[in-house]
Amino acid sequence: MNTIGHLFRLTTFGESHGTAIGGVIDGCPSQLKLDFDFIESELRRRKTAQNATASQRKESDKIEWLSGLLDGVTLGSPIAFMVRNEDCKPEDYEAIKDVYRPSHADFTYEQKYGIRDWRGGGRASARTTLPIVVAGAIAKQILKEKDIAISSEITAMGDADQARKDDDTVGGIVECRITGVPAGLGEPMFNKFSAELAHAMFSLPAVKGFEVGDGFALAKMKGSEVNDTFINKMDAGLRDARRETSPESRVNITTLTNHSGGIQGGITNGNDVVFRVAIKPIPSIAKPQQTVNRAGEPCEITIEGRHDVCALPRALVLVEALAALVTVDEMMMLQI
Amino acid sequence: MNTIGHLFRLTTFGESHGTAIGGVIDGCPSQLKLDFDFIESELRRRKTAQNATASQRKESDKIEWLSGLLDGVTLGSPIAFMVRNEDCKPEDYEAIKDVYRPSHADFTYEQKYGIRDWRGGGRASARTTLPIVVAGAIAKQILKEKDIAISSEITAMGDADQARKDDDTVGGIVECRITGVPAGLGEPMFNKFSAELAHAMFSLPAVKGFEVGDGFALAKMKGSEVNDTFINKMDAGLRDARRETSPESRVNITTLTNHSGGIQGGITNGNDVVFRVAIKPIPSIAKPQQTVNRAGEPCEITIEGRHDVCALPRALVLVEALAALVTVDEMMMLQI
Amino acid sequence: MNTIGHLFRLTTFGESHGTAIGGVIDGCPSQLKLDFDFIESELRRRKTAQNATASQRKESDKIEWLSGLLDGVTLGSPIAFMVRNEDCKPEDYEAIKDVYRPSHADFTYEQKYGIRDWRGGGRASARTTLPIVVAGAIAKQILKEKDIAISSEITAMGDADQARKDDDTVGGIVECRITGVPAGLGEPMFNKFSAELAHAMFSLPAVKGFEVGDGFALAKMKGSEVNDTFINKMDAGLRDARRETSPESRVNITTLTNHSGGIQGGITNGNDVVFRVAIKPIPSIAKPQQTVNRAGEPCEITIEGRHDVCALPRALVLVEALAALVTVDEMMMLQI
Amino acid sequence: MNTIGHLFRLTTFGESHGTAIGGVIDGCPSQLKLDFDFIESELRRRKTAQNATASQRKESDKIEWLSGLLDGVTLGSPIAFMVRNEDCKPEDYEAIKDVYRPSHADFTYEQKYGIRDWRGGGRASARTTLPIVVAGAIAKQILKEKDIAISSEITAMGDADQARKDDDTVGGIVECRITGVPAGLGEPMFNKFSAELAHAMFSLPAVKGFEVGDGFALAKMKGSEVNDTFINKMDAGLRDARRETSPESRVNITTLTNHSGGIQGGITNGNDVVFRVAIKPIPSIAKPQQTVNRAGEPCEITIEGRHDVCALPRALVLVEALAALVTVDEMMMLQI
Repeated sequence: MNTIGHLFRLTTFGESHGTAIGGVIDGCPSQLKLDFDFIESELRRRKTAQNATASQRKESDKIEWLSGLLDGVTLGSPIAFMVRNEDCKPEDYEAIKDVYRPSHADFTYEQKYGIRDWRGGGRASARTTLPIVVAGAIAKQILKEKDIAISSEITAMGDADQARKDDDTVGGIVECRITGVPAGLGEPMFNKFSAELAHAMFSLPAVKGFEVGDGFALAKMKGSEVNDTFINKMDAGLRDARRETSPESRVNITTLTNHSGGIQGGITNGNDVVFRVAIKPIPSIAKPQQTVNRAGEPCEITIEGRHDVCALPRALVLVEALAALVTVDEMMMLQI
Repeated sequence: MNTIGHLFRLTTFGESHGTAIGGVIDGCPSQLKLDFDFIESELRRRKTAQNATASQRKESDKIEWLSGLLDGVTLGSPIAFMVRNEDCKPEDYEAIKDVYRPSHADFTYEQKYGIRDWRGGGRASARTTLPIVVAGAIAKQILKEKDIAISSEITAMGDADQARKDDDTVGGIVECRITGVPAGLGEPMFNKFSAELAHAMFSLPAVKGFEVGDGFALAKMKGSEVNDTFINKMDAGLRDARRETSPESRVNITTLTNHSGGIQGGITNGNDVVFRVAIKPIPSIAKPQQTVNRAGEPCEITIEGRHDVCALPRALVLVEALAALVTVDEMMMLQI
Repeated sequence: MNTIGHLFRLTTFGESHGTAIGGVIDGCPSQLKLDFDFIESELRRRKTAQNATASQRKESDKIEWLSGLLDGVTLGSPIAFMVRNEDCKPEDYEAIKDVYRPSHADFTYEQKYGIRDWRGGGRASARTTLPIVVAGAIAKQILKEKDIAISSEITAMGDADQARKDDDTVGGIVECRITGVPAGLGEPMFNKFSAELAHAMFSLPAVKGFEVGDGFALAKMKGSEVNDTFINKMDAGLRDARRETSPESRVNITTLTNHSGGIQGGITNGNDVVFRVAIKPIPSIAKPQQTVNRAGEPCEITIEGRHDVCALPRALVLVEALAALVTVDEMMMLQI
Repeated sequence: MNTIGHLFRLTTFGESHGTAIGGVIDGCPSQLKLDFDFIESELRRRKTAQNATASQRKESDKIEWLSGLLDGVTLGSPIAFMVRNEDCKPEDYEAIKDVYRPSHADFTYEQKYGIRDWRGGGRASARTTLPIVVAGAIAKQILKEKDIAISSEITAMGDADQARKDDDTVGGIVECRITGVPAGLGEPMFNKFSAELAHAMFSLPAVKGFEVGDGFALAKMKGSEVNDTFINKMDAGLRDARRETSPESRVNITTLTNHSGGIQGGITNGNDVVFRVAIKPIPSIAKPQQTVNRAGEPCEITIEGRHDVCALPRALVLVEALAALVTVDEMMMLQI
């Protein structure tokens, strides 16, 4: 339940103010020399989103590698890693120990488990997504060798600087693109490539929407407008160094438009995979709010602590990381 | 890969013009007297969507129950069932045997498997969703005993009658609501209730978007606008016969608004679960279209066959069925 | 729970006297032309074990292929098949409807499910192993292309003809050998090749023991006696046409002896995999026996019906089939 | 692949001479106050088997708890823990870096992964079973609350003291008994309770055989000798405080004998579950042995290092731990 992936699997652990957060990657190919600099740079992308939009928590986020490596090369055995939690201030949360913060996971966790770690949001904290960045960086390294690249950008976002002044928060939309994906990824019925991506993206705490290709806009369009015409790359003058040398003519086929977002019948068609995720405003606003406590009594709450104004800047590397995990996993399925 | 669910599992099989389509339900509680009338009525909801928007294929869709029952009562062993394909017209598809229909799965299946069943779309046909309706009806019956109900409606749709005249097709949006869901469903990290729903919905052939609660609209809103205030039901004068008798005050807590769509931190909060799926226009349009054949040569195609103008009317019962499968599955996880 | 395998998966269904028994194979490679004659011949091996040791139930066991094939060639989609139950005599079992047959599954099924199909043993009947033979035959066909072969023999068995006269039954031991297995199959920790084989073999109703290589005999031996010395095949004058052409010298290594049964550290070493299963005497003896009924009252029972004297002859093809399923599954894992 | 269990899952990581070994337990019930003293005492059972039979490696084996706990109480989130490797002497293994030790996993790991951690056996070292003891102790604590107990004993073993003098090693047999198991555990087809136990036991490095109840001895017996007669506990004067108060008479039923080892049709019948595992002699013998190196050249090897003479004394707590993991997992399945 804390594991994602079929063949390339990541299991994560850790709470915001516990001893450590970390993960175990099982199924990583052996004999891969890990690019630690790249992993660090991906972690920095998550951290240095610490500008006007981000919380003031300072963590060194130094990864300790526990297993699975010999001289930095993967052995084929599980790769365990962890990052210690250092800058913990549980006292910031004492005041809200018995109060349910609106639109947070306090209430639902307590309903599910009969107990919750109130220190910094516990398991529900965005900090627990750090292991995803580490595993995602390794997945990207594997994909890079196959000329598959993943990028993302913010395509919509509220006015963060104004929100900070207003003791408020904002949301937005991230668009992600996977280029170089071979045709044939994804399973046709219940594990469509789109379904796997959707499942992965909803792992992120604040994601409330997901769409592939033209997504929700398709609801207002006609078949004749959105069907993607197949073309021969050579006819179209398109170059694809990697593929045009293939003896099979089929791989020279692509689509003229990409309303489908690179996925047809749940399976990649070789064009770029394009999807978007909707991210809600962070629920920790500095304004006083009405809520109830554990006894069900109404009360007012003012969230102190250290919180981001917007999750979007940090979300980019996370969206990419999850896309990388899904793509590597499906690439392995393809090789069978 | 053709299986959905963790504890309540459905495996489906079948191609559009093969011998039969069907499924195996594993993990269904024993001693349940199946409501065959209800199952039939759900299948009719799928069929009698055969009006102006639907294909003219006529199938009796008579279910043959193969195992798992004794006098109509579940034994705890796998429930296998099938429906024979009767009104097959493979000759309708002979002409497109070697041509890739735009935005269909012809090309991607052939890339993945090196072979495809060209008769009526094969495994990619919408007909293969029939077993989902059967399993979903059983899931609904289980949920009904727990006062959980699922409903859906079309909230957006193109002009189907005009599209038929224009040899075109339209898409739309389905909104689904699960009422009576207890708080605590869903796993906090990778199998959030929202993630499981998203994964399930993308099993449907034409789904291109999914959102929970306010979804994509949240991207333009502020935290102070979308946070759901917790309230005590009694204070609010709300009645909940089933819950207010509970000795635990916590279960008398709900939210005043429901921007979250009943899911917070990935876990249900007891309020209605509300989500929407975006469904693209059916790619089988009667207009002539440009495409390529298996040799990569450009050609024109006119899709004859029998096809729906819009998938929405049929989609309602499917969206509900998948929501029921996910909910029953998560209910079983909760009982552990 | 009624599914075996990770990538090559078989889900079975059916009860002894229900409508049909069958299975769904998911993950079978596409473009495989099924050898139906071989499948039939494997089913006959199970049936024609109907000599002095076997029950008199007559079933045509005609397979109906429901999906996953186009002109007998696999499509990559699930292969569903079934065999109807024809020669059902539920009346043979009426008398024992409320009585627990000693060492049968009557009592345990009823404890687990609160209900049981008393007609011919229901799901617990040996008849439900038929789909394993079908899937195993397909797995063998896949292995044959890779020069992997599976054979078995009875190495110990009680006196069946005498047992029949005595209204009694006997057990025995089956030894199975997998030749041509490449080195590297199996996962090192929890899914060792030996663990997967053991798990599979205990799927057979009467299996009570499993051992690899020298097995239980190793308990009385010394390390110096049982260690398998590595040798170079060329030095030993051994021929291995398939492997000796390999550019890597390592694959020319094998072991002089095979006390390990071809598995070391849970992973195959390239030598023959050798294992044995212990099969208990069939519990359906014709002699009167003491037992209790559902009310817990003591009573005497005489099992009529049609039953084998010994499960061994039929077990051979089943042991091989399960070994084939495990081997194909692990071969797919290796290719990743 | 480094994970065991369906609902109560243990993922382990670590190599003998890497940074640390450890595990992640996912699915542990929340609100359980861990008995750390008991966990330590179980670890000591594994260590203090360090007498005449054991290696001289000295490890403090201090557990560091990384996540999943608040004041020693389980949160429902993953429980991660680790033990650092301290007394590492990789230089002991330098000499055998390029040589395959007979009946060790050196060769098979290298075949599978193209690389191996030669330091102390790497992932294949018996040291990697330590996390199983930790998780097993937690599982035992859960079972204890349900009056389920697990015990084991050595029922056969070679002469260890003599073997040490002879630079040799010995094997043996461990018998394990689970008492208080409710009827109904295990799934009837592929995940029989016996199959799950077998699968788990073969996770231990030196296990080569597994049998339930009378096991291999059944091969020489008759049905009339081995069928277990059902009796009413009250009639038999048997007391079962926990069960006799049940309103259902069925639970007063047990078997007079227990040739079945408490499992019938793959499902527990309420009697003690009894099974045995055969453990081979440790392959690290001090005598010189013939083998080949990575180049396939014959050579002689003398294994220095620090090694046990017999794995049996340490194996007891491991066999029990794995039995506990399986039983807790199946108990959770039962509660659904």
